[in-house]
Amino acid sequence: MAASVILPDLATQVVVPVAAAIGIAFAVLQWVLVSKVKVTPERGSAGKDGASEALIEEEEGLNDHNIVLKCAEIQTAISEGATSFLYTEYKYAGAFMAFFAVLIFVFLGSIEGFSTKSQPCHYSVGKYCKPALANAAFSTIAFVLGAVTSLVSGFLGMKIATYANARTTLEARKGVGKAFIVAFRSGAVMGFLLAASGLFVLYLIINLFGLYYGDDWEGLFEAITGYGLGGSSMALFGRVGGGIYTKAADVGADLVGKVERNIPEDDPRNPAVIADNVGDNVGDIAGMGSDLFGSYAESSCAALVVASISSFGINHEFTPMMYPLLISSVGIIACLITTLFATDFFEVKAVDQIEPSLKKQLIISTAVMTIGIALVSWLGLPYTFTIFNFGAQKTVHNWQLFLCVSVGLWAGLVIGFITEYYTSNAYSPVQDVADSCRTGAATNVIFGLALGYKSVIIPIFAIAFSIFLSFSLAAMYGVAVAALGMLSTIATGLAIDAYGPISDNAGGIAEMAGMSHRIRERTDALDAAGNTTAAIGKGFAIGSAALVSLALFGAFVSRAGITSVDVLTPNVFIGLLVGAMLPYWFSAMTMKSVGSAALKMVEEVRRQFNTIPGLMEGTAKPDYATCVKISTDASIKEMIPPGALVMLTPLIVGTIFGVETLSGVLAGALVSGVQIAISASNTGGAWDNAKKYIEAGVSDHAKSLGPKGSDCHKAAVIGDTIGDPLKDTSGPSLNILIKLMAVESLVFAPFFATYGGILFKYI
Amino acid sequence: MAASVILPDLATQVVVPVAAAIGIAFAVLQWVLVSKVKVTPERGSAGKDGASEALIEEEEGLNDHNIVLKCAEIQTAISEGATSFLYTEYKYAGAFMAFFAVLIFVFLGSIEGFSTKSQPCHYSVGKYCKPALANAAFSTIAFVLGAVTSLVSGFLGMKIATYANARTTLEARKGVGKAFIVAFRSGAVMGFLLAASGLFVLYLIINLFGLYYGDDWEGLFEAITGYGLGGSSMALFGRVGGGIYTKAADVGADLVGKVERNIPEDDPRNPAVIADNVGDNVGDIAGMGSDLFGSYAESSCAALVVASISSFGINHEFTPMMYPLLISSVGIIACLITTLFATDFFEVKAVDQIEPSLKKQLIISTAVMTIGIALVSWLGLPYTFTIFNFGAQKTVHNWQLFLCVSVGLWAGLVIGFITEYYTSNAYSPVQDVADSCRTGAATNVIFGLALGYKSVIIPIFAIAFSIFLSFSLAAMYGVAVAALGMLSTIATGLAIDAYGPISDNAGGIAEMAGMSHRIRERTDALDAAGNTTAAIGKGFAIGSAALVSLALFGAFVSRAGITSVDVLTPNVFIGLLVGAMLPYWFSAMTMKSVGSAALKMVEEVRRQFNTIPGLMEGTAKPDYATCVKISTDASIKEMIPPGALVMLTPLIVGTIFGVETLSGVLAGALVSGVQIAISASNTGGAWDNAKKYIEAGVSDHAKSLGPKGSDCHKAAVIGDTIGDPLKDTSGPSLNILIKLMAVESLVFAPFFATYGGILFKYI
Repeated sequence: MAASVILPDLATQVVVPVAAAIGIAFAVLQWVLVSKVKVTPERGSAGKDGASEALIEEEEGLNDHNIVLKCAEIQTAISEGATSFLYTEYKYAGAFMAFFAVLIFVFLGSIEGFSTKSQPCHYSVGKYCKPALANAAFSTIAFVLGAVTSLVSGFLGMKIATYANARTTLEARKGVGKAFIVAFRSGAVMGFLLAASGLFVLYLIINLFGLYYGDDWEGLFEAITGYGLGGSSMALFGRVGGGIYTKAADVGADLVGKVERNIPEDDPRNPAVIADNVGDNVGDIAGMGSDLFGSYAESSCAALVVASISSFGINHEFTPMMYPLLISSVGIIACLITTLFATDFFEVKAVDQIEPSLKKQLIISTAVMTIGIALVSWLGLPYTFTIFNFGAQKTVHNWQLFLCVSVGLWAGLVIGFITEYYTSNAYSPVQDVADSCRTGAATNVIFGLALGYKSVIIPIFAIAFSIFLSFSLAAMYGVAVAALGMLSTIATGLAIDAYGPISDNAGGIAEMAGMSHRIRERTDALDAAGNTTAAIGKGFAIGSAALVSLALFGAFVSRAGITSVDVLTPNVFIGLLVGAMLPYWFSAMTMKSVGSAALKMVEEVRRQFNTIPGLMEGTAKPDYATCVKISTDASIKEMIPPGALVMLTPLIVGTIFGVETLSGVLAGALVSGVQIAISASNTGGAWDNAKKYIEAGVSDHAKSLGPKGSDCHKAAVIGDTIGDPLKDTSGPSLNILIKLMAVESLVFAPFFATYGGILFKYI
Repeated sequence: MAASVILPDLATQVVVPVAAAIGIAFAVLQWVLVSKVKVTPERGSAGKDGASEALIEEEEGLNDHNIVLKCAEIQTAISEGATSFLYTEYKYAGAFMAFFAVLIFVFLGSIEGFSTKSQPCHYSVGKYCKPALANAAFSTIAFVLGAVTSLVSGFLGMKIATYANARTTLEARKGVGKAFIVAFRSGAVMGFLLAASGLFVLYLIINLFGLYYGDDWEGLFEAITGYGLGGSSMALFGRVGGGIYTKAADVGADLVGKVERNIPEDDPRNPAVIADNVGDNVGDIAGMGSDLFGSYAESSCAALVVASISSFGINHEFTPMMYPLLISSVGIIACLITTLFATDFFEVKAVDQIEPSLKKQLIISTAVMTIGIALVSWLGLPYTFTIFNFGAQKTVHNWQLFLCVSVGLWAGLVIGFITEYYTSNAYSPVQDVADSCRTGAATNVIFGLALGYKSVIIPIFAIAFSIFLSFSLAAMYGVAVAALGMLSTIATGLAIDAYGPISDNAGGIAEMAGMSHRIRERTDALDAAGNTTAAIGKGFAIGSAALVSLALFGAFVSRAGITSVDVLTPNVFIGLLVGAMLPYWFSAMTMKSVGSAALKMVEEVRRQFNTIPGLMEGTAKPDYATCVKISTDASIKEMIPPGALVMLTPLIVGTIFGVETLSGVLAGALVSGVQIAISASNTGGAWDNAKKYIEAGVSDHAKSLGPKGSDCHKAAVIGDTIGDPLKDTSGPSLNILIKLMAVESLVFAPFFATYGGILFKYI
């Protein structure tokens, strides 16, 4: 039956796990390379290393034991803080997971009244499928596995990041190139680990569940969607909880430290300084990782569930069915090759080579991956097949699917570069915002908001074009694989993302350890490049979230048995209107959460300055742990209302108003949320870099606005502070809102289709 | 055929014009009453007036000729500035109108190749309808009449406002109650004039066009939609141009006056002070008036066009067909009664009675109007009839239509009061924002933005509920009459709205004329109440814009012959996504426009201070006229890009992508735009009132934040300045974006249905 496919099923069964294994092995290799930098003062080894490189590199404090000890001490504090946050978070996440697992089992099991008898299939006519109870049980297991995979990957990523930060600082003594490699390799550990383990676990559960399901692929891939929900609901904790944590600590530390006490950023006397550094790891590494892992898992699940009711699934063609996993497998290899360009083929020697080197990563990975997609589409797909298209089957060719995946991949690159244009201070938009600081903070804010609004235009056109092409060519399957295409270079994307906070932390450690100005300058250069790539990463995360949500939405609609979502019906239209309102409600909550959590931090920092004698003079040590605890507790507590909004909306709307109104809500939240997310991230990024532009003062124009402490700079600082919750909490959290509501609807679709809409049934 | 209706057709033919005539007569009466206050120092009359009231009122400066002369002089300057702006605006509006009239004629005439032969009707089977060429000609005439009515009403409203401001100042010498009555009566002139003339012209063209169309009601009411487009496109000039004008003058005057030169607001030495006062009239009176007139004309047209293809139209039942006009007629009478409560039945005696008195107006008009709607629905409608519902006919009862109109009316009241809750400093939301100024401008902005986002929730639920009810009961006709219900008390709504800027101007005149502190306190009290009602008016305008747009959207879809707008098609979905982006693009443009125009004003004000000797000392007079000219020219120039975006989008999308994508764009812009509009208006209103809360210092909490000039107050001023373009330019302009795109699509629907979608036709 699968004779038209070049790649045999057996080969597919080998290629996918091998690619995952290669990814994990590569991650371990990078870890080993990073671990060669010692943070314990071993005279012999450190001396030797230093001596051998003394001819080409500088030897600044290479043998100063105190500095190494100090770095190790700070690193331990950050690492412990991060671990303590994660453990607390996991406690709540665990409780949530247990509760939600029961909910999934009960809701989905109830569809056929917990019957254990097989039922006629929906799409494979004349066949019998496994009972809903089995789907409920396996969905629950998949949910738990998705959640655990996300947690473990996030945990390991954070471990390596907090393992690498001090090592980056110490390597910065030898030169900027050495430090860059350590930071980048550590990011790569996170990227490859996450991409490979996500793929591996997915592959594993498909094969294991398959032992029970046998020929019933409909049921099998219905159950697999639990994996996406699991991954994504942990992202709620990572993105929203982590986002609140990082900005509460950051804003709290700044409000007392910089404003009231007039001490510099990252000053070790500030009790919140460790919490602030922990926050970078919690928000930007664990949060971003869980967000992208969620997108990856969800887009794979969306593609698989649509494929299972298309010709691949109905005819049981294994290799084409595994097309999404094959794409991800090739993605790992493509990213591996790309990584070598940064770490081995070329060497960063000067500060101005850092940013180009990172940007090249994006371009190279996209180019290599395009070839990979062509290969997989040629080898893994029959020339002609049919795809389920809301009640009908649509004929598709393999080259059309190549176009779908590629358009997603390239749209990601376009969004990345547009984001860079609007948030980097090398271009006029941010320079105009900086210039508007001349007339004060108010004009800075007005111009910044306008910039954010404007930066939405091209990314939306890029997303719209990808959707139009992939949707037209291969219906919702096309959109799902377009999302997967955008995420196929996730390993490289995450490596670049994680690089940022590691460099940021490295700078903080240099400051706290009292290292020289030259070291700080090097880490600052690493950090500056990281800021731009962080903005690119956020644009990328939002773009993929939009595609993923649409794919999930399509899969939900397919599974709920709806054949059209007509705006010209009151049920759908009010869903659309209310759905478009949800991102505002959610943002109001997350922004207030940051405010409340930051105020608690302010109180504690003030208390310590007032009650610990000698703290300001530097003779006494602040109580870092209490600040870490406050940030942890506040962030967990404050994420409950927005979390409840996300998790309850689909359940309430689906149960009370039914699947049509829920479709409207999902579509409305998607088209409205993506705009706010992009504009909030870019506005925040632009303010941050406008401030940095004035501080750095590299051009005549920038000098005329500065220096640090001038009126212009003060206005820029106000903008930067406003941007913090926008770009790091409320903006990126919206990804979770739109994705999680969609995947939750997908998982509960059979329940809503059976029992939903009680309002209209009984009134 | 219309036997089942109680009200005979002849009675309808009498009731509508009589109600309009009563409205106009009442407006004239109010004008006459206002004109009794003399701004020319007539010793005899002024002395007599003053003497007769000396026993109960104070006589502060009642006989001071210099003050009266000064007031008259300032009033003349403001009036001349406003007139000069309007003339310039009308020049451009006229050119635009001429161009667009030709466009309408050519596009619509081309549908049947400019044939002069009658064609078979679409909905009245077996009958012949007038040729498309006739519809093109009459649509063009209706367009011009709508535009001219809007312009004339706006012009007269502004004339009476600039006629009343100095009179209000002078009356304030006698007491707050006297001043209140003058300001309120003047607002009522605007309100009744606009409501009545809008109704009258509409009634007139229906009857005049009817002479040609005869039995062809389909064609007749198709042509009538041009009236809505005309009214609404002038609102583009009023709202967007006026919005840019008022904030450019305001921000420009403040940036040099308050910040650089340290002179108080409304100081006569500031060259931009007259432009600033002109701006209040241009933006809040002419702009708001044209916006609401547009909504009124559009909702009437939307209702009529749907009715014409329902049983009313097909069976030629005149009275039920005129149901929308009957609702408006009764609305004028209801508002007339309501007005008497403010001016005659009760008297405002103290400052704290002003706001309750204005709020009572809203409640009374809503209550009275509910009875009016019941009456019209009982007398003017048959018990059972059918309504066109996207290809099918739906059976409706008269009491169901009563519910549709009423739900719109009451939803307007709910939105009004929620807006008040979030923007008045009597309640905790604004007080919290004021409190957040303690930690600086950044937290003020974060809390303000969060407040705006949060304030969207209940209005959206109110709108969603009205839509759900009216849509379910009577399809798009229900939505159109719900919008009409919300607008049925437009005369009262506009009276309250116009009252605000008149009081604001009165305060400015008192300051400029050098009147005593006590007078200024009275006008400030009038102004403060006006600020809250202005926010209510904006909420109301946005809410009605949402309903109107949906009704227009429905009418467009009906006329374009689409029976479903399915989100699950790529054409519609990308329209939805891009449509949801348009409000961001548009807001980015309008916000930047204010910035650029304000900077031009700053330069001119600086130039005058630097080159006119004795200006700062008050010995030389500034050149007010140049500032007025700069604001005028800049606002006209800066409104071109946003205006082009609004006008060209439907034409381009409809022609190239076709009616389905255009439907998506309209729906997306609607559901996304209404959220930004509400949040932007409320955020701005909250910041404004948080600043006023600190300045007034009436509670202990407020005192702890003040006084004027404290750090908290400075932070609050920054928020207020950011809010200015949000609440007065970009926010309210979005009403125009969503309405105008919808009505334009409606007018051009036959063209798009015939020639549109060339991309998909030829690729």
